[in-house]
Amino acid sequence: MKRGNLLDILKKLRRVPQIIMPKDASLILAYTGISPDSLIVDAGSGSGFLAIFLAYYCRGGKVVTYEKRPDFAKVAKKNVELTGLKNIVVKEKDVLEGIDEKNIDLMTLDMKSAEKVVKMSFNALKPGGWLVIYSPYIEQVISVREEIEKLNFKEIKTVENIVREWRVGRHTLPEVSGVMHTGWLTFAKKY
Amino acid sequence: MKRGNLLDILKKLRRVPQIIMPKDASLILAYTGISPDSLIVDAGSGSGFLAIFLAYYCRGGKVVTYEKRPDFAKVAKKNVELTGLKNIVVKEKDVLEGIDEKNIDLMTLDMKSAEKVVKMSFNALKPGGWLVIYSPYIEQVISVREEIEKLNFKEIKTVENIVREWRVGRHTLPEVSGVMHTGWLTFAKKY
Amino acid sequence: MKRGNLLDILKKLRRVPQIIMPKDASLILAYTGISPDSLIVDAGSGSGFLAIFLAYYCRGGKVVTYEKRPDFAKVAKKNVELTGLKNIVVKEKDVLEGIDEKNIDLMTLDMKSAEKVVKMSFNALKPGGWLVIYSPYIEQVISVREEIEKLNFKEIKTVENIVREWRVGRHTLPEVSGVMHTGWLTFAKKY
Amino acid sequence: MKRGNLLDILKKLRRVPQIIMPKDASLILAYTGISPDSLIVDAGSGSGFLAIFLAYYCRGGKVVTYEKRPDFAKVAKKNVELTGLKNIVVKEKDVLEGIDEKNIDLMTLDMKSAEKVVKMSFNALKPGGWLVIYSPYIEQVISVREEIEKLNFKEIKTVENIVREWRVGRHTLPEVSGVMHTGWLTFAKKY
Repeated sequence: MKRGNLLDILKKLRRVPQIIMPKDASLILAYTGISPDSLIVDAGSGSGFLAIFLAYYCRGGKVVTYEKRPDFAKVAKKNVELTGLKNIVVKEKDVLEGIDEKNIDLMTLDMKSAEKVVKMSFNALKPGGWLVIYSPYIEQVISVREEIEKLNFKEIKTVENIVREWRVGRHTLPEVSGVMHTGWLTFAKKY
Repeated sequence: MKRGNLLDILKKLRRVPQIIMPKDASLILAYTGISPDSLIVDAGSGSGFLAIFLAYYCRGGKVVTYEKRPDFAKVAKKNVELTGLKNIVVKEKDVLEGIDEKNIDLMTLDMKSAEKVVKMSFNALKPGGWLVIYSPYIEQVISVREEIEKLNFKEIKTVENIVREWRVGRHTLPEVSGVMHTGWLTFAKKY
Repeated sequence: MKRGNLLDILKKLRRVPQIIMPKDASLILAYTGISPDSLIVDAGSGSGFLAIFLAYYCRGGKVVTYEKRPDFAKVAKKNVELTGLKNIVVKEKDVLEGIDEKNIDLMTLDMKSAEKVVKMSFNALKPGGWLVIYSPYIEQVISVREEIEKLNFKEIKTVENIVREWRVGRHTLPEVSGVMHTGWLTFAKKY
Repeated sequence: MKRGNLLDILKKLRRVPQIIMPKDASLILAYTGISPDSLIVDAGSGSGFLAIFLAYYCRGGKVVTYEKRPDFAKVAKKNVELTGLKNIVVKEKDVLEGIDEKNIDLMTLDMKSAEKVVKMSFNALKPGGWLVIYSPYIEQVISVREEIEKLNFKEIKTVENIVREWRVGRHTLPEVSGVMHTGWLTFAKKY
């Protein structure tokens, strides 16, 4: 079942705008601790990077990723195919129309209007399951937190993850300029 | 092979000082992209948290972790046992005496004098394999980078990972105080 | 005209909650470049720290500070008296009722509902004068920016100022924990 | 004595590399609280920006700035002349050869080998006077702190000042990329 290195795989894939970065994708594992045999539902797919990251490290589990835009769904499907991973399903469907899966371990949302999917996610999660939402803007963070607070979630947390690269050598200092912001991650565990 | 959630498991374990945090452990996956069937060697074990994190998400692989202090090795062994993970071996041995494994995919160092293990790690890594070093102090970062630059490594990178928690509600703002520093992570890929 | 060191003076004063920190007060000089003979209007006074900081470094100018709460105004007046500075006037008045001064060089707001004072501030500023607003919460930032954008301001900028203290010695690293947030500063120059 | 706005003045001046930024210059006022009638000695001048900033807000005081490079000293002198400020003297002299002034309130160093000037600065400072050193690299910070610790300084502090600009509007978020590092400031008060 050798698939090669994930970074080498990702380099070959097509990208659509607003790709979640590996530092943010990996924080989802760190802060949820989900088992690698989990059932994961993701929306929207975009180019499929988050779904691929999660499926890569949850090899014994399954990732279903929803994408309403046919052009993006096509890119995501092609990308998944290129990875050789067999545990991802790309559904060309608007998640707002309903989540088909039940007893989900992890629901990840990286989409506009994510706040409209919070209740639906709660219902589809199994007890102890996690909802994780990626939000580039603070207004989105506020909206999703508002919905989350209405439901029986606990361990609710919103974080910002800043990775600062350093130059090290005879002169050691942080890189003078670089990426200062990608997005916020909000975590909530179904009670 | 259901093992339960990693965070739930970690809560039950004994801790020794200087535990690497999940945000830093997960960044290792993000920045190396190692396959979940990798051979990983880790030193020193401490309480075994990094080894457990990596073994948890690299279920098809194997983690060997070296610890020279008998008291820490005992804690690490007990902790590994409690996790139920079968793919970790704790070796009570000073890694400075030699790395028994060959063709390693990932070598992680979280120990004093890590710079003394850089060359040995290079030799034990397979081509394309990654060395990752966790350093709480900048002097350690400078020392390990010095050793790394002497060898045929590429994609050398040192980063600092700052996670800032936010309060979200009627008043939204970053937590006023919190953890501002854990350590630096240095990455290097064997050519 | 020797008054002694500002930090030594500030240590002797009474404090009310929510004091603007020196790092934020000084950034106002850095980002507006106002002349030390400026006319400055400030609201609300709180314990008077911001007014005192500005009056201390703008010795040839004048600071008028508004405070509607009688208890705070009393503290501010007492504090100003203790500093020996002659170029500060504390007015016990709600700034929402009107700004008496005209041709102001710098207007600083550190108060709830600052957005209600933006238009009034614009009218009282001289052309080229600066409005600076300190906001602990992002919702306040958004409200004041909304008002600012309606008027003929330019060089509008909102910043967050993070000062990280370092331990330096045999082991050099950022302080492990500390203040991660005080507030945002919004700057706008009247056209 | 109207001189106009400092930012407007600075825009007209010539720049040499490695200019200290206003956010860092202003932090010197915030963390030392020096009186505006202080005697300040600065080395090296570079383009004179730090000397000009300090002289601008310490109008009743005096700033003497040392620069050993004739080309930089020429730029600094020309820049000072353009500001119209009468309280700055540019000395074309290597500060390592000796500080002519005594009873200094504030000594600022923004130069290579600043560690060699620490003892000399201590001797030239008056009791209660401040030494402030700007260091772009951590190795410089470590060197100057080593010298500082040998002498009778107190309230020793090294900080890093990160200003993050925000986009505010319908979508509110930190600027995605920007300046992540300028330098460290080390403060020490002569006992």
